[in-house]
Amino acid sequence: AILETVRRELAKAEGALPLPAEPAPLAGRRAVVTAGPTHEPIDPVRYIANRSSGRQGFAVAAALAKLGADVTLVAGPVTLPTPPGVQRVDIETALQMQAAVEAALPADIAVMVAAVADWRTDAEPRKMKKAGSAPPALSLKENPDILAELSRHAERPALVVGFAAETHNVEAHAAAKRTRKGCDWIVANDVSGGVMGGADNRIHLIDETGAEDWPDLPKEEVARRLATRIADHFTKDPS
Amino acid sequence: AILETVRRELAKAEGALPLPAEPAPLAGRRAVVTAGPTHEPIDPVRYIANRSSGRQGFAVAAALAKLGADVTLVAGPVTLPTPPGVQRVDIETALQMQAAVEAALPADIAVMVAAVADWRTDAEPRKMKKAGSAPPALSLKENPDILAELSRHAERPALVVGFAAETHNVEAHAAAKRTRKGCDWIVANDVSGGVMGGADNRIHLIDETGAEDWPDLPKEEVARRLATRIADHFTKDPS
Repeated sequence: AILETVRRELAKAEGALPLPAEPAPLAGRRAVVTAGPTHEPIDPVRYIANRSSGRQGFAVAAALAKLGADVTLVAGPVTLPTPPGVQRVDIETALQMQAAVEAALPADIAVMVAAVADWRTDAEPRKMKKAGSAPPALSLKENPDILAELSRHAERPALVVGFAAETHNVEAHAAAKRTRKGCDWIVANDVSGGVMGGADNRIHLIDETGAEDWPDLPKEEVARRLATRIADHFTKDPS
Repeated sequence: AILETVRRELAKAEGALPLPAEPAPLAGRRAVVTAGPTHEPIDPVRYIANRSSGRQGFAVAAALAKLGADVTLVAGPVTLPTPPGVQRVDIETALQMQAAVEAALPADIAVMVAAVADWRTDAEPRKMKKAGSAPPALSLKENPDILAELSRHAERPALVVGFAAETHNVEAHAAAKRTRKGCDWIVANDVSGGVMGGADNRIHLIDETGAEDWPDLPKEEVARRLATRIADHFTKDPS
């Protein structure tokens, strides 16, 4: 910081010379970001999925990388280009996503944006179910809660952020979710207006001090704001 | 045909002059092609789907349009560009696909390439199932058999072609399917080698006279061959 002040004073003194580039605020920080849906196979050709374009998660990975973080992006099946400077791990199921997140530890920052399927099918997905046979009653099994398990993990990142789509009572539900999951922040997306799949998100950021409302913003701008908030967090509390 | 012979002879007589462009063999023919998977909603964010890139169906639509046909492409949720000259109708569920195919009638040619979900959920897909609640036992209901219903439709196209992915006994299964569905041809794709999702397909074309084996071919080449076979069919039997 002293060096920085000296540089600035020198730059001022030299008048017309431009300021040197500031060091990236998240340089040296490792981040793991999840994005997209998961696909849970029913048999070799059929699966259960969540609607999720992956755009918000990819934007968060891109924004963190822009601020200098070393980002691993664990991506479900989406057709999006990998953001520059981001290391991408493609997975399909919730169990694979959980394993990839754990493989990316230790990390300073975790931002879990993926719309993980809550359930997977209980059966062996090897045998093909034939059309014409009686429709099967699919027996489902709960998937691991990746956000909650990461929040109590032995190698828990210093800052764990979860995303939540809420249709009503957004702040109350998100605050309850923050406590239940044991994460630090919840980025609550108000989808009551049918925002899901669209370009804009309406965000309430929930932390231990309360809620912060953001205006309707494009997903890229939500990502930029969130990455800046994360960088500020580590500037204030560089532990 | 006489006119064509005269043109050719004239062209030969005139020596260096190029042959005039041949008329497109499927000009004036209407075709409806289905492609991609269908998505069957479980609730507002979850759905059941089939693995299908849509590439084979899109290639068939493109190949038929190139031969002059007036093509309607009924496409499930895929991220592929619409082929030039093709009219595209995007749908999501099997019921919507069936309605869109019927809306495209009358047609001379139908090529059903889509991997339609055999089942849809039986429940109203309006209520969101909450994570943390007991996993639901999904009750499924059979979807309409679009190929079979089209084959016995009052406005049945003159040529109805179905696609079938088979893992073993490919020709026998495909021939049985042709009879069961009531269609004219089955394009049977041998997926025993794990071709599904890849670029190449291994095709057996089943018609009323028997089976024709094609070598491993890129999907675009399968589409070109099939479109040429269809054009030949209408040249021989222009009813």
